[in-house]
Amino acid sequence: MTTVLHTGIGELVTNDPAQGDGSRLGVLTDAALVVEDGSVVWVGERRAAPAADERRDLGGSAVVPGFVDSHAHLVFAGDRAEEFAARMSGQPYAAGGIATTVAATRQAGDATLAHGLARLAREMRRGGITTFECKSGYGLSVEHEARSLAVAAKLTPETTFLGAHVVPPEYRGRREEYVELVAGPMLAACAPLARWVDVFCDRGAFDVDEARTVLAAGMAAGLVPRLHAGQLGPGPGIRLAVELGAASVDHCTYTTDADVEALAAGTTVATLLPGVEFSTRSPWPDARRLLDAGVTVALATDCNPGTSYTSSMAFCIALAVRDMGFTPAEALWSATAGGAAALRRTDVGRLTPGHRADFAVLDAPSYLHLAYRPGVPLVREVVTGTQHAS
Amino acid sequence: MTTVLHTGIGELVTNDPAQGDGSRLGVLTDAALVVEDGSVVWVGERRAAPAADERRDLGGSAVVPGFVDSHAHLVFAGDRAEEFAARMSGQPYAAGGIATTVAATRQAGDATLAHGLARLAREMRRGGITTFECKSGYGLSVEHEARSLAVAAKLTPETTFLGAHVVPPEYRGRREEYVELVAGPMLAACAPLARWVDVFCDRGAFDVDEARTVLAAGMAAGLVPRLHAGQLGPGPGIRLAVELGAASVDHCTYTTDADVEALAAGTTVATLLPGVEFSTRSPWPDARRLLDAGVTVALATDCNPGTSYTSSMAFCIALAVRDMGFTPAEALWSATAGGAAALRRTDVGRLTPGHRADFAVLDAPSYLHLAYRPGVPLVREVVTGTQHAS
Ligand SMILES: [Zn+2]
Ligand SMILES: [Zn+2]
Repeated sequence: MTTVLHTGIGELVTNDPAQGDGSRLGVLTDAALVVEDGSVVWVGERRAAPAADERRDLGGSAVVPGFVDSHAHLVFAGDRAEEFAARMSGQPYAAGGIATTVAATRQAGDATLAHGLARLAREMRRGGITTFECKSGYGLSVEHEARSLAVAAKLTPETTFLGAHVVPPEYRGRREEYVELVAGPMLAACAPLARWVDVFCDRGAFDVDEARTVLAAGMAAGLVPRLHAGQLGPGPGIRLAVELGAASVDHCTYTTDADVEALAAGTTVATLLPGVEFSTRSPWPDARRLLDAGVTVALATDCNPGTSYTSSMAFCIALAVRDMGFTPAEALWSATAGGAAALRRTDVGRLTPGHRADFAVLDAPSYLHLAYRPGVPLVREVVTGTQHAS
Repeated sequence: MTTVLHTGIGELVTNDPAQGDGSRLGVLTDAALVVEDGSVVWVGERRAAPAADERRDLGGSAVVPGFVDSHAHLVFAGDRAEEFAARMSGQPYAAGGIATTVAATRQAGDATLAHGLARLAREMRRGGITTFECKSGYGLSVEHEARSLAVAAKLTPETTFLGAHVVPPEYRGRREEYVELVAGPMLAACAPLARWVDVFCDRGAFDVDEARTVLAAGMAAGLVPRLHAGQLGPGPGIRLAVELGAASVDHCTYTTDADVEALAAGTTVATLLPGVEFSTRSPWPDARRLLDAGVTVALATDCNPGTSYTSSMAFCIALAVRDMGFTPAEALWSATAGGAAALRRTDVGRLTPGHRADFAVLDAPSYLHLAYRPGVPLVREVVTGTQHAS
């Protein structure tokens, strides 16, 4: 069974520079996309399209690859609306706020956690996210980290063990013991449920030696490293990520020249999280510097109840363009192909033969409207080649 | 036929300080709202609610008054996505860009204009806006201004004659003649179709004497004045608005001490339009100064294809909190009761007996989430006492 979709005057963004206008986005108009068994089998100008069993006319709406959200914390209970309101009245963000969510998450039943995750996954999907990563990190005990990952694994293959999110209250003054727990029994319980290992390497969280210990243990257990670094201040975390060949280093709000050089010379993606700067009133990262240095840059939501409770990649694109120096084209690429690179996925993030037919149909003729019409839910329809259970 | 709605753990925002927590928002929980024939007839604690014919349980979702958008330009053709993309690469905003939309609007048929307006009105309603104002200003001839208002009047009673938006190209070098046209034949054709008269009084648009001429003529024709002022720089427009007893003066991006004093002493609402500052990268107005001086402040979308192509009041609330110094409570008040004040409407903007039962049900337990969850379409359901044809 093959289906051909016609975009008419709407743009089709392929992320294949060999297509259409020859830009990095490979934008076609009056285009056709042929889908078979959930995969793209042909893309190009409508008049050259092969015959298909079924035909759909998208009426001039733009089609973009489904967003790939490579950084999200979705397994938790409760919310922190009051903390948000206090911060907006002038209190700075402190990583310790995570403890509030840890307490609520430990108290919640599995069904509550699964229900909360499913709700956010539905929200993400309605907004055009077709692949998402999900971290643990609000359990912070062997039992609660493992069950968080078990809940997440039912909805996404991109599960990340983040036992080293913060030191939980019961280990106050005993942080070495906590790192041993994370790199030992907690990892042993979590590794079968996770693809990735991550550490929050920043002021008030874990230092670079602690991060190295946890990531090395995770790698030895078969997990692939990624890292939170450079959110609250400059530090050695970004260079550690590059040194270890991490798939991605996330936040990069603060970067030094040495960080940018290391990223440009390495294979690690820099994932920027504009929802965090927005919701914590932090300085905007200098994305232009990273992009101009040739670093592969991803955009992700960091959806979490403390510092970025948005599930909207379109909102992140609008911020990236308005406040971080991205062009609209760079922002869309980073939210799709960039996210795929950050998750080392070669099957999503592009609409070319062999890729999954994961895409969003916009209530607009051009992808430019994602930044041009901020706050407007422009995603009219979401199609995925392989349906997740969201 | 009466209906009682129960909010359970969700907040009910009434905008009546006599209710609930005694704040300006008058927030109740475990509340009931009784609606009869599209009007609120009772509000208070659930256990004290009178009997009703029908009962609905809102399952813990927050209920807020429908947003009142007192400033929008919705009758036009085409878009300016390319101009937006160029501006994001560093070109400043110039009022002359309006001419692009004027040319497209004049060429468009009535059905195209009506279809575009209906699409935006649907978007607004889905996002919780239950009352909206709509200006002319992309026709700029007797014929095209009048037909723009005729199109708008089918969807809202809040129609505004804005013939003095910019001087159209064919009057270049003859601006006195254009002002005479606006204050004479154009006003005569438009006054029967409009409630309000407005002028864009700013650098590159109309000066204060021109504004006075047009507003005085409009008032003589039975229209009520409102004004665009202080967007592109400080000027005498804000004080003119107060002097004339205008219902509202809009933008106020730049305000002097004299402006703030005049507003505080007068009856004119200051309407802030955060979508404009966001989409043009302009400095944020000092809302805190206006609020602390006791000025009545409204928030509106200014939805238009040039400088703020958002229809989302929730997005405006998030920006007002993040970047303009509003508390979440002040922002919600300004987007509801403030907008009603800017339109001199006493039947909307509050959920108390005698007001229209116009409200939005949120996919969240608290109104705080409107700012806490930026970019997320949180409005789950919209109810209006008197349905507009959107
Ligand atoms: Zn994170
Ligand atoms: Zn305006």
